[in-house]
Amino acid sequence: MIRFECDYTEGAHERILQRLLETNDEQTGGYGVDKHCEKARAYIKTACDSENADVHFLVGGTQTNTTVISSILRPHQGAIAAISGHIAVHETGAIEATGHKVLTLPSDDGKIRAEQVKKLYDAHRNDATFEHMVQPGMVYISQPTENGTIYTKSELKALSQVCRECDLPLFIDGARLGYGLVAMDNDASLADIAKLCDVFYIGGTKIGALMGEAVVIINDALKKDFRYMIKQKGGLLAKGRMLGIQFETLFEDGLYYEISKHAIDMAMLLQTALTKQGIQFLYHSTTNQQFPILPDRTLKALSEKYTFSFWEKVDATHSAVRFCTSWATNKENVEMLIQDIQALQ
Amino acid sequence: MIRFECDYTEGAHERILQRLLETNDEQTGGYGVDKHCEKARAYIKTACDSENADVHFLVGGTQTNTTVISSILRPHQGAIAAISGHIAVHETGAIEATGHKVLTLPSDDGKIRAEQVKKLYDAHRNDATFEHMVQPGMVYISQPTENGTIYTKSELKALSQVCRECDLPLFIDGARLGYGLVAMDNDASLADIAKLCDVFYIGGTKIGALMGEAVVIINDALKKDFRYMIKQKGGLLAKGRMLGIQFETLFEDGLYYEISKHAIDMAMLLQTALTKQGIQFLYHSTTNQQFPILPDRTLKALSEKYTFSFWEKVDATHSAVRFCTSWATNKENVEMLIQDIQALQ
Amino acid sequence: MIRFECDYTEGAHERILQRLLETNDEQTGGYGVDKHCEKARAYIKTACDSENADVHFLVGGTQTNTTVISSILRPHQGAIAAISGHIAVHETGAIEATGHKVLTLPSDDGKIRAEQVKKLYDAHRNDATFEHMVQPGMVYISQPTENGTIYTKSELKALSQVCRECDLPLFIDGARLGYGLVAMDNDASLADIAKLCDVFYIGGTKIGALMGEAVVIINDALKKDFRYMIKQKGGLLAKGRMLGIQFETLFEDGLYYEISKHAIDMAMLLQTALTKQGIQFLYHSTTNQQFPILPDRTLKALSEKYTFSFWEKVDATHSAVRFCTSWATNKENVEMLIQDIQALQ
Amino acid sequence: MIRFECDYTEGAHERILQRLLETNDEQTGGYGVDKHCEKARAYIKTACDSENADVHFLVGGTQTNTTVISSILRPHQGAIAAISGHIAVHETGAIEATGHKVLTLPSDDGKIRAEQVKKLYDAHRNDATFEHMVQPGMVYISQPTENGTIYTKSELKALSQVCRECDLPLFIDGARLGYGLVAMDNDASLADIAKLCDVFYIGGTKIGALMGEAVVIINDALKKDFRYMIKQKGGLLAKGRMLGIQFETLFEDGLYYEISKHAIDMAMLLQTALTKQGIQFLYHSTTNQQFPILPDRTLKALSEKYTFSFWEKVDATHSAVRFCTSWATNKENVEMLIQDIQALQ
Repeated sequence: MIRFECDYTEGAHERILQRLLETNDEQTGGYGVDKHCEKARAYIKTACDSENADVHFLVGGTQTNTTVISSILRPHQGAIAAISGHIAVHETGAIEATGHKVLTLPSDDGKIRAEQVKKLYDAHRNDATFEHMVQPGMVYISQPTENGTIYTKSELKALSQVCRECDLPLFIDGARLGYGLVAMDNDASLADIAKLCDVFYIGGTKIGALMGEAVVIINDALKKDFRYMIKQKGGLLAKGRMLGIQFETLFEDGLYYEISKHAIDMAMLLQTALTKQGIQFLYHSTTNQQFPILPDRTLKALSEKYTFSFWEKVDATHSAVRFCTSWATNKENVEMLIQDIQALQ
Repeated sequence: MIRFECDYTEGAHERILQRLLETNDEQTGGYGVDKHCEKARAYIKTACDSENADVHFLVGGTQTNTTVISSILRPHQGAIAAISGHIAVHETGAIEATGHKVLTLPSDDGKIRAEQVKKLYDAHRNDATFEHMVQPGMVYISQPTENGTIYTKSELKALSQVCRECDLPLFIDGARLGYGLVAMDNDASLADIAKLCDVFYIGGTKIGALMGEAVVIINDALKKDFRYMIKQKGGLLAKGRMLGIQFETLFEDGLYYEISKHAIDMAMLLQTALTKQGIQFLYHSTTNQQFPILPDRTLKALSEKYTFSFWEKVDATHSAVRFCTSWATNKENVEMLIQDIQALQ
Repeated sequence: MIRFECDYTEGAHERILQRLLETNDEQTGGYGVDKHCEKARAYIKTACDSENADVHFLVGGTQTNTTVISSILRPHQGAIAAISGHIAVHETGAIEATGHKVLTLPSDDGKIRAEQVKKLYDAHRNDATFEHMVQPGMVYISQPTENGTIYTKSELKALSQVCRECDLPLFIDGARLGYGLVAMDNDASLADIAKLCDVFYIGGTKIGALMGEAVVIINDALKKDFRYMIKQKGGLLAKGRMLGIQFETLFEDGLYYEISKHAIDMAMLLQTALTKQGIQFLYHSTTNQQFPILPDRTLKALSEKYTFSFWEKVDATHSAVRFCTSWATNKENVEMLIQDIQALQ
Repeated sequence: MIRFECDYTEGAHERILQRLLETNDEQTGGYGVDKHCEKARAYIKTACDSENADVHFLVGGTQTNTTVISSILRPHQGAIAAISGHIAVHETGAIEATGHKVLTLPSDDGKIRAEQVKKLYDAHRNDATFEHMVQPGMVYISQPTENGTIYTKSELKALSQVCRECDLPLFIDGARLGYGLVAMDNDASLADIAKLCDVFYIGGTKIGALMGEAVVIINDALKKDFRYMIKQKGGLLAKGRMLGIQFETLFEDGLYYEISKHAIDMAMLLQTALTKQGIQFLYHSTTNQQFPILPDRTLKALSEKYTFSFWEKVDATHSAVRFCTSWATNKENVEMLIQDIQALQ
């Protein structure tokens, strides 16, 4: 089987494995305070143009979202998110398990708008029974979104401004941040993101690392005692160096962007070819997740050779599915997929 | 001001206060194991035709919902409810605070249908990422609903059957159960309800008591250690007799039904009169909550003399509001309200 | 049976019941914002010499402790308490159920000392693995304690000072506060308590009310959004007036102190008489809980006529038990008990 | 610096890294259902002589303890543990964060005894206020313990028997299980452990792996929906193969035991030499953690060249410290340490 069902089907970028080998015999202290973690922190802060940020390394995305969100909210508060947001749908209630409601906003493309946040915030304040409802306590967005779309810089600015007006910390889930940063239509740099939000994370698991997410806390008010939170939520890796070494490798000379770019090239190759074949897409994604709408019989045939994710039925005979490319995607496989789809039309 | 904004604007039915006076000097043990609680339990079991039920007395509705639901669910499970359900909207995230998501279903009238439950249940089982999503663990409905509507016996039967097929305990929030039981179009008796669900509660706070809700656990599997849960959630009243005495009074000779009937009579008086005036209603409620749609200028004028709850804007110049009647509602006040509305048309 | 097993064996003080009768037909808004609650708040603030305090009414003690503590702590913090503290032993893990550890300190008499708090605080800061341990986040004490003892003003001052130095809010559980305030050896007034702690509560359930505890928040930083917390934890009583009317009655002209004094008189009567009989006590309690050490055969005989609480085995043939007096205790019953004990020696 | 402060100061065993390299380009599905995980499961089940067990791979110890314990307990239950147990002391309240109290038993050597469990269980059942206290819901022990000691097979049998009598699932934290299995005085095999407990885990992080713990669920009643729990608690690694490959390598031909043995040899080398020097130990540890009591001035001198963990002050001039050996410990370093200690006497 040739796998396109997600962006974590291979191990790690070879330079990361090489670095793990080279450093294997080094003795370091545990829990992320070793020299590799320190170097990785320095590289990331520079990349974010945020020397005062706190950078922490966690293992996975659900863990990171849970740790960040439960660290910010008071018990009566919830996190505003798109109805399709990862925390709202695909984390087995991890946020609720820490006591907090996810306050969902409708979204067709995975994004939420500044006006929606303001409206929900105002509605809460103006309702006579406001103390009987969960108070909005922060805003969670994903960049790129779960639908492959990306927020423009001006959209982020608008969200950021509303969040600051309403005193709602803005948290950006960057599980696939690299793929967003190098997308052709992206105009929000890492430094822009750092400037516009209160806390975000840079995903490693889906972009070249064995595992690992780098949380960047910009807002001073959110920094206090964050390591306690990581430990309590099970994310303080004993051999924290494993995370430091990986992010050091990804950020010391731009590897993160370089391999993200490869994934985008592969995704655009697929998108362009399928578009030429007259195929439509469920979302206008410029990143590594592509959602073509294909005949069910085509999908059935493809599924004997390729893996991909079913997304939703579109009509009686068509479904939208998700193909993911990644830093590891083989160009030959994408070309073969394109040809096979064409042959099945 | 004449108050119609909710059904808890007065103290308690005079017979309850009288009974509190009469028993005041009695010495009893604490925490709901006294003779008054025992008598009240017996009366309620008989009324429910459920001699094997466990009956517990708690103080308020949110507390009761939280205690029951957190007692039933495992950590990865959520409670299915209407999007307008009390636990979904008006309990400040109390369910989430115990770690559980409320899985909401759309509803126009406050009710959910058996097919909706089945569909959500099946969707969960059939999704490739089911372990990444909250598992449906029980179903919560209100009888009558937050919109004043009531489930027919056949609707309850259908829900009950689906719940049993899917191994989802069915919990009925009866904060206003009395008002539903005596509604003209109701065909589900207390015994029917007990037979069709796994656990429910009979509301006292809104029907004649100072406070208090009687939880009736039908399903043996849900009975174990429930008193620990009540204590942990802060609901094990030291002077538990206060609750026992009240429910004893309400159920020893039908007072609960009698005073519920008064509230319904008052609601129907209002509904009939306003309908005659050509006024429309947001929901077809046959219980003690009525939701007329009135001109905003009428509402403004009324609000100087009456209290009522704003519900929603209907169009540029009209809004739906809620008027509640109760066991304590004064007929003269309803008649005055009717006349005042007519005069303002 | 004549009951001494706790201080909540009767209903309410007759003036409270009378007041409930008088106000029963009044219409008020719900949730504790009615005029009775407002009056009660004013009386309590005056009694505490704390015009800037926030006063909230909750239903019971476990609920109050849970609501206050979970409102104050961040997720990685715990509450310091005596190993015999109510939250540590007798609330079915209610504090843990909100996510927080109770950090216990040893205590022989129910009290903890300022030095113990400082030592635990310092140990936490100086431990190399501090981030792997629960951070002390506040201090909880009871006045009087679960053992009937009371903190002197100078002990409270010392605790208060340490708490402020360490930035640990000090919370005083006053479930039996009245009984402490009028104890003969007490030198800490309500105003002193308000000055020395950050938040405390004045117990009603055990002192004349049907139920109810008045939370007094002194520290501005702890006031924000507290009503949300009450609602979420199930303590926002629909007919909040029930609590307001009771505290209004208790505090408008000193009834709270007066009836507390009666309980202390009865306790001292018992203590003095038993001491004369040569009986020893487990704790030196000057409040309404007395812990005599009696022969097991005496206890067996007494238990056919009286209820009391077993406390602990003291030696092969003796046990300590608890007798509680209260606002409602009948002097004749105490005298009979004294005589019966004497007769059984 | 030469590091002895813990057993996770290096990367991974070279064969593990080699295997990661070899498999790096393979495409597999995520979340632990790939062929490497399947193979690792099979090896572990065979090693445990438990073909019906469920085996799951998680990332770290705190995460594993939290996931297992919160999966087993109902809300009003707690986990019994030694006062020195990892969950009681060093997990930042992770268990409490899921709502459960840790019920601690005193212990001098890190172990708890069957009689202690029985006594606590009986005390709970016999207490008049049992519903006001946390109900014991399971037992947690570590093998070896946090003090380096190991339970004998007969001690485990006694615990197991009590647990079964009391219906308390027995969970064994095996973060350092390998080091216990090969200790000279150990008589409980992996198969014995599997037979005697309900669920346990085999630690990888401290024994040759980059990270990873293998949970083995023996009791059928505890198997249901465990993957949901892993996901919710943030432990379902996207590239689950990383864990599978590591455990496959450790268990396919006995590497786990072989490298555990090396650590024990190094620990015994140190213990024997220091004993010969007349040095005493805080605990009688036969595993890879050694707790010598040394003069503070010796420790000060050593700390310029070696890392180790301070444990506790023993008297005015001596302290107990912890030296850990591991699969990666260099014999020359141990010999140098021995000589340096001798020289400093």
